[in-house]
Amino acid sequence: MITIGHWKDVKQEEMLEGVRIRWLIGKELNPPNFYFRLFEVDPGKATPFHLHDWEHESFILEGKGAIRSSDKTLREVGPGNYIFIPPNEKHQFVNTGDKVLKFICIIPKKD
Amino acid sequence: MITIGHWKDVKQEEMLEGVRIRWLIGKELNPPNFYFRLFEVDPGKATPFHLHDWEHESFILEGKGAIRSSDKTLREVGPGNYIFIPPNEKHQFVNTGDKVLKFICIIPKKD
Repeated sequence: MITIGHWKDVKQEEMLEGVRIRWLIGKELNPPNFYFRLFEVDPGKATPFHLHDWEHESFILEGKGAIRSSDKTLREVGPGNYIFIPPNEKHQFVNTGDKVLKFICIIPKKD
Repeated sequence: MITIGHWKDVKQEEMLEGVRIRWLIGKELNPPNFYFRLFEVDPGKATPFHLHDWEHESFILEGKGAIRSSDKTLREVGPGNYIFIPPNEKHQFVNTGDKVLKFICIIPKKD
């Protein structure tokens, strides 16, 4: 069966202060290979500057931000930018604007 | 290395008349598990009404459309809707509006 929903109707979880995540296609839908999440980052806030052994495939929906890389350089992103973060690459999504930064982030299913 | 790009800078391919696809994260970037594509469907046009043994995870960015299911019912979608199409489910994305229908569609990598 095809599932259709709206991101606003999905329960949000506070990942850390000013960073919220919604699992649009998560464990409940039991997709075969990957999970589809939507993040919101408040102005002045950022996701953790970290690495892990799985990739991210992301797409900026709204707002103004920057991606911090392992060498700590920041690259600006905005609506329409896609971002491929390979496994084991240190990364961080930073909100550099004055509105919410909203983006999609897909990860492989490992469970 | 982290790759950042903009969907408008990615070469488009005409899948069929009035339906264009861009592989934002495709074979060239060699992602480990899944590909990230962006579709544009012109008013009055639609993707093929078909099925295959892999899933779609989609998100509507712009426009007004409908998803046709195996029983041929149409369900309306618009910006902010996500769609999970499991493997072997017949489906079609139909543009029911008067502007381009733009959506993301993620598929597993099988090669």
